[in-house]
Amino acid sequence: DHTIICGFGRVGRRVAAEFNLIGKQFVVLDTNPGSVGAAVELGALVVQGDGTDDAALESAGLARARSLIVCADSDMSNLFITLTARAARPDLFIVARASDSSAARKLRLAGADRVVEPYSAAGLQIANLVLKPQVADYLDIVSTAGGDDLRFEEIEVRRECPSCGRSIRDLRVRDTTGAMIIAIRKEDGRFDTTPSPDALLEAGDILIGVGTPDEIQRLEDLFAPGATVAG
Amino acid sequence: DHTIICGFGRVGRRVAAEFNLIGKQFVVLDTNPGSVGAAVELGALVVQGDGTDDAALESAGLARARSLIVCADSDMSNLFITLTARAARPDLFIVARASDSSAARKLRLAGADRVVEPYSAAGLQIANLVLKPQVADYLDIVSTAGGDDLRFEEIEVRRECPSCGRSIRDLRVRDTTGAMIIAIRKEDGRFDTTPSPDALLEAGDILIGVGTPDEIQRLEDLFAPGATVAG
Ligand SMILES: [Ca+2]
Ligand SMILES: [Ca+2]
Repeated sequence: DHTIICGFGRVGRRVAAEFNLIGKQFVVLDTNPGSVGAAVELGALVVQGDGTDDAALESAGLARARSLIVCADSDMSNLFITLTARAARPDLFIVARASDSSAARKLRLAGADRVVEPYSAAGLQIANLVLKPQVADYLDIVSTAGGDDLRFEEIEVRRECPSCGRSIRDLRVRDTTGAMIIAIRKEDGRFDTTPSPDALLEAGDILIGVGTPDEIQRLEDLFAPGATVAG
Repeated sequence: DHTIICGFGRVGRRVAAEFNLIGKQFVVLDTNPGSVGAAVELGALVVQGDGTDDAALESAGLARARSLIVCADSDMSNLFITLTARAARPDLFIVARASDSSAARKLRLAGADRVVEPYSAAGLQIANLVLKPQVADYLDIVSTAGGDDLRFEEIEVRRECPSCGRSIRDLRVRDTTGAMIIAIRKEDGRFDTTPSPDALLEAGDILIGVGTPDEIQRLEDLFAPGATVAG
């Protein structure tokens, strides 16, 4: 159930820092001795090897991994690694880094589920800082895993939970938990982005909730399989 | 009231694309003929020149600009440009790009209001895609300026608005506008991140609202200086 971080440059290190903040398990794979040293210093599990090499990927636990992050410095290496891993593991969640949109397209063809372009992502963030500085500050706070004050969380509505089939109004979500449900992802992938208080929460829905860690905990409890629900 | 985009590489181009989506005015400043050509092709206003040169910054309208985006390829150029612009315009909003955290620190000392590190930003985004994929998708939708479906917006509460001094519950914000107020930034900079329905909306507060374009329009109308408020 671990994640393989393939490439431990600036991108990979930031990924590892976020994972460490919430205690998420990962294995680093990199050829560069300096990168391997940096990972060891973090106390991370490391395999020294090349991600384009099947045996190295296997040593990093490809067969049992849940996700793979492909963030070597070169688009060509990333493409090769993505193709190799996808061939071995059709069900793996693969996120790859691309230097531009042409490389991004190829990485998707090679089997990456998501592709992130650092320069493009930075440009978007800069534009938002100028266009809507308060919103950008808000999103900054909510998008770091280690934030004490505020978190976005995703919560699945399960059939066996007593809250399943009821509405936000009916459950008095805001009053009983302090958290807010700001979106509902339906099973067909569609987002109900400003859900009506009367929208029914159905089995398979994913709720996007926002609140302090305590508030989010109460929201999670409200949708736990054995939850007790008022009314 | 324009923004100067200093450096028209991959970062600057993404900024320009976002600005174009909402018709926000900008002037591009770059020495490279290829970059100048790309900006001209976009129909942008362009000054061919070096941002480290005072006269070039002046030609791009530094005296009247509202914001400056410093995104040349080199940290040293960015530092130089930031220092120059800050000396000339203490009130300018400056966002700069840095390749790492050491350069970021120097850019802040030089006067940048915000600094974005592309590799670090990409690493954070990748971590979020693996840790909370549904939340990441949601944030992806809300953070592009051109999104039709959903927007985050910041709205100031002005003293002369009839809604000023009332509460979210009292104004029946969700029922009358369809939008949600998910945070309130108080005048001291503090965020009330999951505002209670009974929190009073005071003069100088910035509301962070989320909704469809129509819903956000109704929310803005509710806080317009001459708004008519029920009750
Ligand atoms: Ca809706
Ligand atoms: Ca609160």
